Amino acid sequence: MTDEDGASTLEPLDLDECRRLLRESTVGRVAVAVHDFPLIVPVNYRFVETSGPTWVVLRTRAGSLLEQAPMPAAFEIDAIDAQHHSAWSVLVRGTLHRIDPESADLAEHFDPEPWADGERDVWMAIEPFFITGRRLPGGTPSWAFQPEAYL
Amino acid sequence: MTDEDGASTLEPLDLDECRRLLRESTVGRVAVAVHDFPLIVPVNYRFVETSGPTWVVLRTRAGSLLEQAPMPAAFEIDAIDAQHHSAWSVLVRGTLHRIDPESADLAEHFDPEPWADGERDVWMAIEPFFITGRRLPGGTPSWAFQPEAYL
Repeated sequence: MTDEDGASTLEPLDLDECRRLLRESTVGRVAVAVHDFPLIVPVNYRFVETSGPTWVVLRTRAGSLLEQAPMPAAFEIDAIDAQHHSAWSVLVRGTLHRIDPESADLAEHFDPEPWADGERDVWMAIEPFFITGRRLPGGTPSWAFQPEAYL
Repeated sequence: MTDEDGASTLEPLDLDECRRLLRESTVGRVAVAVHDFPLIVPVNYRFVETSGPTWVVLRTRAGSLLEQAPMPAAFEIDAIDAQHHSAWSVLVRGTLHRIDPESADLAEHFDPEPWADGERDVWMAIEPFFITGRRLPGGTPSWAFQPEAYL
């Protein structure tokens, strides 16, 4: 449903839907503030839900900015459809901290397997205090309102 | 070129390439810190290069978190190919501040045209002090190394 400008209304995603989307994706973006200035870095990740922690797990290089944890962090995944002006996004906010990959069988079952090479053997996790999501339903592309154009 | 794990090496994008990608995209993500905790919000934007300012321009609602500018911000665009494990991303860091849409013919020529409805008539811009980009070239999908599987 779109208005005359093709804009639609943002709708909240419920927590179950956010968790499902987090489980199904493997690439997201981490934001942290360095000297009070935010930056955003794409990362490979795994969403880990165990009987113990719920974590967004990622791997980085020794000495990377992210390794200066613990620190507040945001993590975001999304999908964008420019044709229909539709999108969804999930935002996780929490504390980024270093973890032991041997704990909770992480290395065996939840390796984020970075696409970028190099020794990314520092394992980090964001422990969420906040998970939320939104969907923009978009609409039918405007040309579809003009079937006569194809007759 | 990928190693045995299918990982490839991150390569820097030069400034011209970053600017070209910023001009061609219309959806990105803004990160700001609120009470020291970062958050990430997808936004429609336009990259404005005039004889005067270079700006990432966006529109938001009156009273939104972003309106509490000026404040430090990061802005990111990317494209991700999960099949080839390839990706690129561009990161802009700067100060987010409120702007007058009537200045520099912004409203006429550089309207970010938000996909989300509602009165998004507060115009904001990030004035970059830093633009950088990276590309992960990825590789041929692993099945392509096994042509005999299709004989």
